[in-house]
Amino acid sequence: MPSSPTTPLARQIARELGTPAVVIDLDVVERNIAKLQQACDAAGLANRPHIKTHKSPVLATMQRDAGAKGITCQKLGEAEVMAAGGHHDILISYNLLGEEKMARLARLVRDGISVRPCADNPVVVDGYAEAARIADREIGVLVECDTGRERAGVETPREAIALARRIAGHSGLRFDGVLLYAPEDKMLETQAFLDETRAGLAEHGLALRIVSTGGTPNLRNLGRIEGATEHRSGTSIFNDRMMLACGAASLEDCALAVYATVVSRAGPERGILDSGSKTLTSDTGGGLDGHGLIREFPKARIKGFAEEHGMLDLGSCDPKPEIGDVVSIIPNHVCVVVNMVDRLVTVRGDKLVGTLEVAARGKIV
Amino acid sequence: MPSSPTTPLARQIARELGTPAVVIDLDVVERNIAKLQQACDAAGLANRPHIKTHKSPVLATMQRDAGAKGITCQKLGEAEVMAAGGHHDILISYNLLGEEKMARLARLVRDGISVRPCADNPVVVDGYAEAARIADREIGVLVECDTGRERAGVETPREAIALARRIAGHSGLRFDGVLLYAPEDKMLETQAFLDETRAGLAEHGLALRIVSTGGTPNLRNLGRIEGATEHRSGTSIFNDRMMLACGAASLEDCALAVYATVVSRAGPERGILDSGSKTLTSDTGGGLDGHGLIREFPKARIKGFAEEHGMLDLGSCDPKPEIGDVVSIIPNHVCVVVNMVDRLVTVRGDKLVGTLEVAARGKIV
Repeated sequence: MPSSPTTPLARQIARELGTPAVVIDLDVVERNIAKLQQACDAAGLANRPHIKTHKSPVLATMQRDAGAKGITCQKLGEAEVMAAGGHHDILISYNLLGEEKMARLARLVRDGISVRPCADNPVVVDGYAEAARIADREIGVLVECDTGRERAGVETPREAIALARRIAGHSGLRFDGVLLYAPEDKMLETQAFLDETRAGLAEHGLALRIVSTGGTPNLRNLGRIEGATEHRSGTSIFNDRMMLACGAASLEDCALAVYATVVSRAGPERGILDSGSKTLTSDTGGGLDGHGLIREFPKARIKGFAEEHGMLDLGSCDPKPEIGDVVSIIPNHVCVVVNMVDRLVTVRGDKLVGTLEVAARGKIV
Repeated sequence: MPSSPTTPLARQIARELGTPAVVIDLDVVERNIAKLQQACDAAGLANRPHIKTHKSPVLATMQRDAGAKGITCQKLGEAEVMAAGGHHDILISYNLLGEEKMARLARLVRDGISVRPCADNPVVVDGYAEAARIADREIGVLVECDTGRERAGVETPREAIALARRIAGHSGLRFDGVLLYAPEDKMLETQAFLDETRAGLAEHGLALRIVSTGGTPNLRNLGRIEGATEHRSGTSIFNDRMMLACGAASLEDCALAVYATVVSRAGPERGILDSGSKTLTSDTGGGLDGHGLIREFPKARIKGFAEEHGMLDLGSCDPKPEIGDVVSIIPNHVCVVVNMVDRLVTVRGDKLVGTLEVAARGKIV
């Protein structure tokens, strides 16, 4: 008879808080925060962590205390929560658009928060000029540049220069630099884009005060983009199965796990977890096999989901989990999992600590 | 110059509430509620809608006012919210397990709420007996039966009978019947499973007071399972792209849309919506192409997501949406989208009404 796979901590979490529970180990979180800061320090870059991963002003404060210069948000609603939580140097790596958002941006700026939004088109730039007018304050803007990811961002240095000039041409706006998010296999192209942009800007008397690079996998490329001034990393605070897959993290670096109970073993080769797509999400992590790594049963495959069911294929798993076992799962993509819950459970090693509000959860607007 | 694709309502929602916004049309909701009730009435089945889709006690009350006998929940946390909202006849179509959950189940039952949970294994049944002991009340339990879906549920009538006998053998429990969720191509097998179970139960003096069937696509099969007593449908209150794909709904039946703004047109054949996997979710709706149907641009394909970016492939779309256009998207799977937001925006036709709290959002425990 093998000993139970359910650790005393897992049993305690299930007994006191119930499962599923999204749990972070603060010891690992602190180690990950320190590592990120060290990596930025070593490369001579300012650290501007992306809070889309943790959505907590408390964790952002831990990042600041470790040396972060400011934070990055993806949405204005996240920035509002962070500002209320005492964070006053905020980069928003997103095109903000529409009068409702411009009124809110103006409010933040007027309240003395340094909020730098991004733009990849003139419509968005002209909106920021209106926000600056409403706030009666200058707003610094970055031009988002796309060097191969095909997300947002101007596609050519020529467009970047034209947009920078448009920003600088508005009396209420200040051109502050560029936002990059280089694909790992496009470092040289990204450098060439940056160099050409810089040269073209100089001809118009414009300088790059900020060159922001991004991504947790790109931490191994820090220093490769000459002229970068700061870096945005979100996922590294917790890590996930995607980061394991690309070699950006080891299992010991994974600070977050979803604790779930095996509630059914209806067939000999299969089982059901009480955690489905409404907890672990359907995010495949860019095409990973299965929907998470069960630490206690790495050969049990989470083959599919219903909303509240995780379907286990136990064909390759021996011994197999039994009904009532509480397991811990490293999710495919940690940022979207945190966004499913109002509270994270906090632990240190094998000790339950408490809970932490995900204050910016669901701030999609 | 074509007229703007942005409707006055979309413009108003963007201006007053911002995008993305998850919007329901109450006229369509009321029509869908009435249709479901009529379908159940016509088949002689009690209507027990599944609230996992809307997670709102207010909408559940509208369903009750239309004739629903009670409601179905997937999680105990949902049942608690619904009970607090005045719903006292609750089926939980799920294996509840663990002492934390048994204490909460006992509390609900003791408060006079009729909560019937399900079981597909003896461990779960014995837990319910403990909850009944704590509550000092009898608890009615259904046996979940799997007739081909490979989710939870006993796989054979023999197991169903054994589990029913175990339930009936506990002094605090009452065997109330079976929960079915038949695949559409397994109606005959499901009928055979039910008939064999009924006959076997009779030999032990046990009867099926409740035979619960489920699923919105199965509304076209109502009446095909002889002996069914009630039906659970969730998605039909809103409908989605999955229901369009399987023919269970038409576009006019879709009550929910995600309103999103085009914030970038970085390439001639592509664009970006301000709505990504943290709003529309990565749920593929069982393998649909793309991540939603844009009503104003049905040929624009939402080809991928970042967390807050919806990537548009506009290659087949003419005219193409422009920066600043506000579009409305029928999501692949509506139940998981509702679960992303704290509030739904409500409209009637082209009139903005207000907002409605998604009170049971994120109640995964």
